[in-house]
Amino acid sequence: MEFHYPTGRKYVAPSDSGKRVHAPKKETIYSNRGMTLEEDLNETNQYYLANGLAVIHKKPTPVQIVHVDYKKRSTAVIKEAYFRQASTTDYNGICNSKYIDFEAKETKSPTSFPLKNIHEHQIEHMQNIIKQNGIAFVIIRFSLTEEIFLLEGKRLFEFWDRMKNGGRKSITKKELMIHGHPIELGWAPRIDYLKVIRQLYGF
Amino acid sequence: MEFHYPTGRKYVAPSDSGKRVHAPKKETIYSNRGMTLEEDLNETNQYYLANGLAVIHKKPTPVQIVHVDYKKRSTAVIKEAYFRQASTTDYNGICNSKYIDFEAKETKSPTSFPLKNIHEHQIEHMQNIIKQNGIAFVIIRFSLTEEIFLLEGKRLFEFWDRMKNGGRKSITKKELMIHGHPIELGWAPRIDYLKVIRQLYGF
Repeated sequence: MEFHYPTGRKYVAPSDSGKRVHAPKKETIYSNRGMTLEEDLNETNQYYLANGLAVIHKKPTPVQIVHVDYKKRSTAVIKEAYFRQASTTDYNGICNSKYIDFEAKETKSPTSFPLKNIHEHQIEHMQNIIKQNGIAFVIIRFSLTEEIFLLEGKRLFEFWDRMKNGGRKSITKKELMIHGHPIELGWAPRIDYLKVIRQLYGF
Repeated sequence: MEFHYPTGRKYVAPSDSGKRVHAPKKETIYSNRGMTLEEDLNETNQYYLANGLAVIHKKPTPVQIVHVDYKKRSTAVIKEAYFRQASTTDYNGICNSKYIDFEAKETKSPTSFPLKNIHEHQIEHMQNIIKQNGIAFVIIRFSLTEEIFLLEGKRLFEFWDRMKNGGRKSITKKELMIHGHPIELGWAPRIDYLKVIRQLYGF
């Protein structure tokens, strides 16, 4: 997870329980892009849940809590905490008996997706999921053009290995067009990734 | 999630990424009981993961972040945040194609498990999981006697409905002995809940 907010700016928490939290309006054009994919996916997951199609949630942001002020019993205030690197992917759940697990990433690059957005332990996690016969993938959005691709875990691993073997440190958009699956932004659901998954896995 | 720490005491973060954090030794006897089940389950899940048996993780504690200090780019400090109620269960993952979802709770009561430890939306979540053909249950530990029970979702719902219909607000230990499944504390894995689940669901 990356944080790009300038000094002193208020952090607007990701809405991981379905409770939407909006960033101030004037900041929505570029700096909020990092949250937009998450908001769209949360809405998508709410749509799936409300329609009995799937139960998929974003995990809360991992935080290392150091100090808590318990002045009042009911209002514990966390006074010192740090962001931690996630050890798994951000989203998981179930759809029609199938275990679903994915990471969602946005890039401002117009032409390629830098692999530094994915961490080694997330690759390992996805590999472990696939060994257990689960479905793992990544959703990539190009912020500038609003293009969204779903890339299956097994394909991602190939690009990862290429990098590990000294090859390029990113996946080009052209490669995503060939090896990934485009998702058009819709209304309800916003990002219908399950449609792609159901076609790919035939359920 | 409940917090029982007295005023001013340092919070020791749950080890949700496998990194173990221990509470000070002198406090381990009673006040640390609330973490012990979690630590045992994290070790169990690490055992399952290391042996390729399952990929099951605890979700991070949900925190509402209000203010972050970005003095240095690399060291963002969360200066104000609050604990939020979880909208799902604490643990989920996959074992041998099967989606696994559970909540773990400890009680100091010697004779019964108070249902106030479970929230309505967690019940709803487990019901949604079962509708998608997933496996949902709760692990209950009686701190005083170290007895552990696994209670399947469908049984838990019956006790929940009994309460909703004006009946008792807890599940007696006797009822857990009849409707639940005892788990003996082991060495590796510590709490072998998958053994029970595999027997129940035949995989």
